Amino acid sequence: LDYQHVQVPFEITLWIMLASLAKIGFHLYNKLPSVVPESCLLIFVGLIMGGIIYGLNDRSPPVMDSDIFFLYLLPPIVLDAGYFMPSRPFFENIGTILLYAVVGTIWNVFGIGFSLYGICQVKAFQLQDVSLLHNLLFGSLIAAVDPVAVLAVFEEIHVNEKLHILVFGESLLNDAVTVVLYKLFRSFCEMPTIKSVDVFAGVGKFFVVGLGGVLVGLSFGFTAAFTTRFTKDIRVIEPLFVFLYSYLSYLTAEMFHLSGIVAIIACAMGMKRYVEANISLKSHTTVKYFMKMWSSVSDTLIFIFLGVSTIGENHEWNWPYICFTVIFCLIWRALGVLVLTFFVNRFHVNTITSKDQFIIAYGGLRGAICFSLVFLLPEFHRKKLFIAATTVVILFTVFVQGMTIRPLVDLLAVKRKRESAPTVGEQIHIRFLDHLLAGIEDISGHWGQYYWKDKLEYFNSKYLQKILLREYDQPKSSIVLLYEKLERKHAIELAEAGQLGHGPAHPSLLGPALLSSSNDRTVRTDQKLEDTQNPDVLDNMQEILARNLYRIRRTGPAYNRHTLPGESEPSEHAKEILILRHKSL
Amino acid sequence: LDYQHVQVPFEITLWIMLASLAKIGFHLYNKLPSVVPESCLLIFVGLIMGGIIYGLNDRSPPVMDSDIFFLYLLPPIVLDAGYFMPSRPFFENIGTILLYAVVGTIWNVFGIGFSLYGICQVKAFQLQDVSLLHNLLFGSLIAAVDPVAVLAVFEEIHVNEKLHILVFGESLLNDAVTVVLYKLFRSFCEMPTIKSVDVFAGVGKFFVVGLGGVLVGLSFGFTAAFTTRFTKDIRVIEPLFVFLYSYLSYLTAEMFHLSGIVAIIACAMGMKRYVEANISLKSHTTVKYFMKMWSSVSDTLIFIFLGVSTIGENHEWNWPYICFTVIFCLIWRALGVLVLTFFVNRFHVNTITSKDQFIIAYGGLRGAICFSLVFLLPEFHRKKLFIAATTVVILFTVFVQGMTIRPLVDLLAVKRKRESAPTVGEQIHIRFLDHLLAGIEDISGHWGQYYWKDKLEYFNSKYLQKILLREYDQPKSSIVLLYEKLERKHAIELAEAGQLGHGPAHPSLLGPALLSSSNDRTVRTDQKLEDTQNPDVLDNMQEILARNLYRIRRTGPAYNRHTLPGESEPSEHAKEILILRHKSL
Repeated sequence: LDYQHVQVPFEITLWIMLASLAKIGFHLYNKLPSVVPESCLLIFVGLIMGGIIYGLNDRSPPVMDSDIFFLYLLPPIVLDAGYFMPSRPFFENIGTILLYAVVGTIWNVFGIGFSLYGICQVKAFQLQDVSLLHNLLFGSLIAAVDPVAVLAVFEEIHVNEKLHILVFGESLLNDAVTVVLYKLFRSFCEMPTIKSVDVFAGVGKFFVVGLGGVLVGLSFGFTAAFTTRFTKDIRVIEPLFVFLYSYLSYLTAEMFHLSGIVAIIACAMGMKRYVEANISLKSHTTVKYFMKMWSSVSDTLIFIFLGVSTIGENHEWNWPYICFTVIFCLIWRALGVLVLTFFVNRFHVNTITSKDQFIIAYGGLRGAICFSLVFLLPEFHRKKLFIAATTVVILFTVFVQGMTIRPLVDLLAVKRKRESAPTVGEQIHIRFLDHLLAGIEDISGHWGQYYWKDKLEYFNSKYLQKILLREYDQPKSSIVLLYEKLERKHAIELAEAGQLGHGPAHPSLLGPALLSSSNDRTVRTDQKLEDTQNPDVLDNMQEILARNLYRIRRTGPAYNRHTLPGESEPSEHAKEILILRHKSL
Repeated sequence: LDYQHVQVPFEITLWIMLASLAKIGFHLYNKLPSVVPESCLLIFVGLIMGGIIYGLNDRSPPVMDSDIFFLYLLPPIVLDAGYFMPSRPFFENIGTILLYAVVGTIWNVFGIGFSLYGICQVKAFQLQDVSLLHNLLFGSLIAAVDPVAVLAVFEEIHVNEKLHILVFGESLLNDAVTVVLYKLFRSFCEMPTIKSVDVFAGVGKFFVVGLGGVLVGLSFGFTAAFTTRFTKDIRVIEPLFVFLYSYLSYLTAEMFHLSGIVAIIACAMGMKRYVEANISLKSHTTVKYFMKMWSSVSDTLIFIFLGVSTIGENHEWNWPYICFTVIFCLIWRALGVLVLTFFVNRFHVNTITSKDQFIIAYGGLRGAICFSLVFLLPEFHRKKLFIAATTVVILFTVFVQGMTIRPLVDLLAVKRKRESAPTVGEQIHIRFLDHLLAGIEDISGHWGQYYWKDKLEYFNSKYLQKILLREYDQPKSSIVLLYEKLERKHAIELAEAGQLGHGPAHPSLLGPALLSSSNDRTVRTDQKLEDTQNPDVLDNMQEILARNLYRIRRTGPAYNRHTLPGESEPSEHAKEILILRHKSL
């Protein structure tokens, strides 16, 4: 037996195996995950594992190594979050998200730090030796909402898209603030005296850390997209580039003390549309699937390790300090959300309701990032107290808040995420309104959201697409794509039922939808309407559509500040349609 | 800048990136890979990289770490090889493969070892201090054909399936022999005296190492299949189990000093059919794609590292020893193949031609396994000579043999791999002959290949499938599956051409094939015949087939020693077919 030789990979594989088996175990009984969030169950498994290790070895089980967490476990989750980020709601609410992430986090850090310092002044609590700086340092690590914990809970409760993106976006983008404040206070703790110039340098760092992260991320993202232009002959390594470049962006940002989380999100969001167009369909399935798999495993491991690390003798118990930490975390977050939302609502038509505010405040879960940061603190005599307080806050938020948020969402009747995909009619109207608003903003000289979107889209189609896409071609309209997809699905269904090629065809699914939307009714693209419609008309419609389906080549914005309507060649299009029409008659 | 912190993952990522970019680079110019094998190009890149590192640092670049090679780089390649192993030719030729792998490798080890010892006795060469045991140890590491090198070259030259599996199977299965002999001679080198009991124990170890590997692999493989029974609710981690269990089987085998390569191959081949039935289609795409991607990256890294490690001051040059090593490797392999094939051909109808024998002997490439083993040798004063000789043998086989084997295959007109998939007629005939031969063997009491295949198939459907498959159902016949696949493909083509649901349907692709095979002609399932057939007849045929396609439920072997024909219920089948027939009329 030669265990030494294979120890490292063997133990890693076993931990991943344990995590995966635990996940299977929870899902064997369908009732369990619907009551208790998976994150709680995993922490519980971790606690048991930790207890066993502690019992057998008679010493504290190993705590989660901060390096392992930040270098190997966190990136897959953030990459997954960034790659699948719904870009429309994210950019629509970017202002609010940034306000919560930057101002809100600073508010929480100083609020919690100063009030805990106040508590330390009470002689009965025996905490006078904890300085203001140490309290602020503690505040900077405990204030930040954790993306992993938020994702784990919010993915299960299905609140509406805006609410979800507000909490989740904040938890991702506050990383820049946390990095700056944590490092600032840590360096202050080690300095003999603090000059005012250091404080100003700290403020400047916010922008460097955040914007630097975005820059690093975008440059790696575009390089990735450019690289996938040349992978046509070796499809098999295409998915690799998505992972390699994203990971490099994270590591590079970390290397320069920038925000790695911001970098990897910028990289993923920047590369996504170009990479998807360049790589093959199977590569894309692999990318998506593997990302989900990896992030799911990372997530599982993090919560198990969190449980394991809780057991042991790393804690110093001080009732007042720990209780007040929990209370202050709740109070300052609630106050912050209230105040900030007040300002946000003054500038928005679509306001954040008080129910939403409550969920935003209540959904401020803490997780493994705090935990890793507290272990990274330099050694000082109260470190164990901070560890204990952080552990309690994490367990409190994940267990108490995580388990009660679902019943509360039900109780308050918070607006849920809609189950169905948007109808064709809705999609058309959304596009139409986007164009209209871009035009209005442009004419009125207001540099709003739609103006910038239009500008970006122009820049994208004029320069970026030409450089980054292999086969530069105007993309098909999403409606034509939807139609083709439905036709294909329909054809497969027919083939499976053995009905292909004889008798009157089953009408296409889109047939009724188009027909009815011409009657100015919004209908779902489902089959319910088929019965109410005359099948002959539908059949006819279907046939005309199928024969005449004109491959739309020009789907750029109909309104465009930079081109005149006459610039494209409508005569060719018209001719082509005429020929098709002629053929069908 | 904090490089220390991210160094390990950063450098690993950069190496993988270099490997992937090198691969893209080769494929940008299509002519290059068709002349020079990719493995040579990669070693060349490695040599340049090594030269740069040597030039900059003025000391030898780091050599490939044997642990990294055996624990991280080799398993993905072997897993890929095992998972995609064509099982029919493998099991048909298992006897020949084992003969080459076991007897052939032992022959080579002792042949090379003793002849090199003979060379060492020549006083002019100044090699008298190299003992017989050291020569045998060197022989044991240089004799084994390397699967990575063989795969890299043979994948590009497309020789016929049997020839490919003979060389490739040998290169995989000789691992057990190499492990035993290498460890045996290494321990003999350290012993003061060698007793005859040690030699006998060595012979016994062959069986333990080989069969133990198979046992470990199969048990992990079946556990993996069993685990995927329960992943229905969390599809996203399904692919993980394939990788985790395979890797665990490799590590476990290595831990117990068994053959890891044999274990992982047994694991992959054992789990494949059950896992594929249990997991979703997308998971399966991910598994296949990721396996290919991973093995391709590993393979690339191995050849680059091989190049890098060649540069430096690890070598002791001795012209006679090195030249004679290359010559003896060639001679003993050629002799071994000739002698063994003589015996093989006496017992087989389908003999191995002399052309094939030449390619088998010439395709005996050495690679990274020898290289890692020679670095793992205990320190002694002639180690650098062995390293130099191994490097030269590897470079000679990969460059000279690897680059000339393709022209030689062309020149000798070696039978190539057939490009097209077997026709429906061929498939039917192969199945028919299998059943027939199983029956003949059973009646004549000969326990041959078909008898055992039938036994295994019975055991599989009686016990294994019931335990390991989630939805235990007799699998569909491959012909029905093929028909359904063609129908689906056809439907998609129709949908894309916009022809669905009007006019006479395009006849199915299988229509003519079935029609003609009923005329006792073997036809390809291609569209060529359509023109020669009456389209009305085909149309009719197609319609009847599509309507009446009977979902065959009983596709077990028609001949079966363990059941009587009356045991199944043909009445139900007949009734069902009757109802369908009735409906269509």
